[in-house]
Amino acid sequence: MRTLSSYLVGSWQQQQPGANDRRTVLVNPATEEPLAEVGRAAELGRAVAYGRDVGGPALRAMSIRDRGELLQKLAKKLHERREELIEVAIKSGGNTRGDAKFDIDGATGVLAAYARLARDLGDGPWVIEDEAAPIMRTSKIRVQHVLLPRRGVAVHINAFNFPAWGMIGKAAVAWLAGVPVLSKPATSTSMLAHRIAEIIVESGLVPEGGFQLLMGSAGDLLDHLGPQDVVAFTGSARVGAIIRGHKNLVANNTRVNIEADSLNAVVLGPDVEEGSELFDLVIRDCAVEITQKAGQKCTATRRILVPLARLEEVREALVERLNDLAERAGNPASKGVRVGPLATAQQLQDARAGVAQLLADDGVSIVRGDPQRAEFTDIPGGKGYCFDPVLLEATAERAADPKASVHAVEVFGPVSTLLPYDGSVAQAAELISYGGGSLVSTVYSDDRKFTAAAIAALGPFLGRLVIADEKHAGGSFSPGCVFPQGNHGGPGRAGSGEELGGLGGLRLYLQRTAIQGGAGQLARIFGKKQDK
Amino acid sequence: MRTLSSYLVGSWQQQQPGANDRRTVLVNPATEEPLAEVGRAAELGRAVAYGRDVGGPALRAMSIRDRGELLQKLAKKLHERREELIEVAIKSGGNTRGDAKFDIDGATGVLAAYARLARDLGDGPWVIEDEAAPIMRTSKIRVQHVLLPRRGVAVHINAFNFPAWGMIGKAAVAWLAGVPVLSKPATSTSMLAHRIAEIIVESGLVPEGGFQLLMGSAGDLLDHLGPQDVVAFTGSARVGAIIRGHKNLVANNTRVNIEADSLNAVVLGPDVEEGSELFDLVIRDCAVEITQKAGQKCTATRRILVPLARLEEVREALVERLNDLAERAGNPASKGVRVGPLATAQQLQDARAGVAQLLADDGVSIVRGDPQRAEFTDIPGGKGYCFDPVLLEATAERAADPKASVHAVEVFGPVSTLLPYDGSVAQAAELISYGGGSLVSTVYSDDRKFTAAAIAALGPFLGRLVIADEKHAGGSFSPGCVFPQGNHGGPGRAGSGEELGGLGGLRLYLQRTAIQGGAGQLARIFGKKQDK
Repeated sequence: MRTLSSYLVGSWQQQQPGANDRRTVLVNPATEEPLAEVGRAAELGRAVAYGRDVGGPALRAMSIRDRGELLQKLAKKLHERREELIEVAIKSGGNTRGDAKFDIDGATGVLAAYARLARDLGDGPWVIEDEAAPIMRTSKIRVQHVLLPRRGVAVHINAFNFPAWGMIGKAAVAWLAGVPVLSKPATSTSMLAHRIAEIIVESGLVPEGGFQLLMGSAGDLLDHLGPQDVVAFTGSARVGAIIRGHKNLVANNTRVNIEADSLNAVVLGPDVEEGSELFDLVIRDCAVEITQKAGQKCTATRRILVPLARLEEVREALVERLNDLAERAGNPASKGVRVGPLATAQQLQDARAGVAQLLADDGVSIVRGDPQRAEFTDIPGGKGYCFDPVLLEATAERAADPKASVHAVEVFGPVSTLLPYDGSVAQAAELISYGGGSLVSTVYSDDRKFTAAAIAALGPFLGRLVIADEKHAGGSFSPGCVFPQGNHGGPGRAGSGEELGGLGGLRLYLQRTAIQGGAGQLARIFGKKQDK
Repeated sequence: MRTLSSYLVGSWQQQQPGANDRRTVLVNPATEEPLAEVGRAAELGRAVAYGRDVGGPALRAMSIRDRGELLQKLAKKLHERREELIEVAIKSGGNTRGDAKFDIDGATGVLAAYARLARDLGDGPWVIEDEAAPIMRTSKIRVQHVLLPRRGVAVHINAFNFPAWGMIGKAAVAWLAGVPVLSKPATSTSMLAHRIAEIIVESGLVPEGGFQLLMGSAGDLLDHLGPQDVVAFTGSARVGAIIRGHKNLVANNTRVNIEADSLNAVVLGPDVEEGSELFDLVIRDCAVEITQKAGQKCTATRRILVPLARLEEVREALVERLNDLAERAGNPASKGVRVGPLATAQQLQDARAGVAQLLADDGVSIVRGDPQRAEFTDIPGGKGYCFDPVLLEATAERAADPKASVHAVEVFGPVSTLLPYDGSVAQAAELISYGGGSLVSTVYSDDRKFTAAAIAALGPFLGRLVIADEKHAGGSFSPGCVFPQGNHGGPGRAGSGEELGGLGGLRLYLQRTAIQGGAGQLARIFGKKQDK
């Protein structure tokens, strides 16, 4: 069987036999067919130093515009290999063709968006943030903020659900900032990340040391980081807390960004009537968010707030849609399959346990779906990690209880819960805050007062809030779709991080420095911001 | 003796006798005369809840403009009591009159600056950050970022060196953001913070719950914080690491900002000749940064990089200035005294130990000053915590050693070290990065190429970089002076935080939320940014 190696310190590593030779076998999650082995890398301190000393200077020697062009060319390269990458994603990630495109096109999308942003950032060794501000009325001394590439390595620890978008979405931003990347994919789905890494290395576009790939365990990687390095992690809140509290990172004040599980919600306004385009959008979005990637998205909708008066019609329409999709759950290599398997046996076990935990609360019941279902399209009996889409419903009383498990337990699979609420005022939807902070929520309403009040009431608990109305229903995107222009990351439980969002995402990799000096002196060095 | 109480949950606390009655006696650091006692507060969970549930809604009910006016009025109130506050600072903080003004006027300065900033922030329940950006060329869906007040409490844990500026500088920003404050001054100098708190409470300007004062120990305060709360700490790196790694804060992803000790530097360019105004500015700035507040400033200059060729003239001029100031070290209540004592007996002990540690390195020697000096102006023999200003000098070899203690040990007193370096290129000054990240450094030069190169070379290791040239030498401010318009905080060792700096400082207390929706829908809710 093929062994997938790390690309570190300028070469594809030979896997060492002996003590470090703890290998993991990757399988097709639909069939459990073995695909490849992943070894364990050693001497990670050397890799960190190589990134810092070789990759960093090479990236910083390029202008921002050149780095933007690098992104554009890489987007083209990946797009050229799109069909091949889709095949890898289907086989190794349990992705349907649609899921795979979502991941891979998402990756090229971030590259392209940051390539475009590069054109607005000037061409200095710094990005100028604001205009020089006088420090007092009578003084000629001004202060102006510039953003400068940090001198460390960007360590990216990615989640299993988006091997392409996770890796490239993070790397694109770091590269544009001028910071070298050491990327560690989640092992279970790392075959796709590994293939993309091969394409990156073959392309020769990223200067040597600017991209390294660490397959398998992170080992003692974090012990080697210092004050100028950056860690960006996507994954579970549990591992996120281990990273944030890591002794060496705390001692060095190493920058850490965490994007973790969260209980995202959608909120139906009081005015969304059956038969409207907006109502259809709600049902379409919810079905997508429950079943796309088999519900394994950090942005997937877990709680659906419905005004009590509309509960029955929403339930009925959503069950109908989910029934249809559930029939087409199975092996994503087969034509017609619309819902693939979960990524691993452990994920399947966790999803079953999670549903059981939700049901243990009085007042929560299953509306559709069977967590024990074993028969799926084109999968030999008993094999693979498929999970039947499950819709739950809570009573209004349970929904209003801050301690209810619907506000605490995230099932990372095709599972969501209907929560009836008093839809008359937007403030009533503040019960979504019981989830402790989310990446995204959506408000569906044509009532502008309701929407504006919802922004003020719900916004502090969210990294992104989608507002959907009848007029834009046709051209709307389902809320789990993350665009590089919008902030990605949420407060509290969602990790308290910020990624993407245009210039905002670059800040993670840049030091914001106030330059204080005479007005004329600053103008001569930086020029007027407008001239850039 | 008077006991200074906490102001919590709407009233000045009666100190409880019994188990919690661990009192600390505050003394005049020049004479050791006892001034007051500080007790220990209990039930801090109630105080946190009170801030969140009473203070937060009251502040958010005010418009941003109203909150700006609050700051303006409070600035006026404090300014009216300026003389009284200066007296408290001299007596309880070891401040000279100049030191006291620096602290107190700094506090009113931040209030006034953020009051002015408020006028540019619109008058909505949110601050609009950018213009709506299209998510793709063919779509009418846009994304726009808004900043919304977090729903928690701002816990401010302040350092002993700036009881006024530290407390008010942090609180002004939180209040403008709409977030209630629970402020804990450092105990040793908390008499001034307590007096200011009395003025705030008496004024009735801050709505009830919007300001609380915790005297003495922080107790179990951090155990009560959650995902929407914010901790802003100023103090030692050691305590900073305890806070950043605190289990409950890590588990909740509570926002933490740390501003810690750092080894700030100044860099003389190759062109600064004796007799120039710029040379005089270097000497003046260094003398101020060594002796102001007896060197107890997180922004004080600890390392002075001098081109080898200029070393002798800089040493001579600086020693002359320091000799003059050292003669005027003593009891700050006495006329003519220009250098006060350190804040506590412990600080004095630490300063002596720190100098010994620096001298333990081969190639570091004392140029002037006696760490054991015991006689100071108007202080009864042996009393008080005065420390003779000390200037050290390292060899060029030692200065270039990343492991040298001059790059590791910060003596928090009137102590600085001359470091000869190759001043021919700005990159040579990168040895300041051996300090692991600093709040501020200064480059003195009229060579624009040198200055621009220094910004790129040194900026990533700094929160602020002052550039000083001959033309602006007359109107320049010494680098340790922090202005509300410029970022305050530095990477790595300096805590990796960001405070002040105009809008930047507000971000700590605001959630950045991407609002995604139809172009027309966003325009109707937010208006055009320009119209605001």
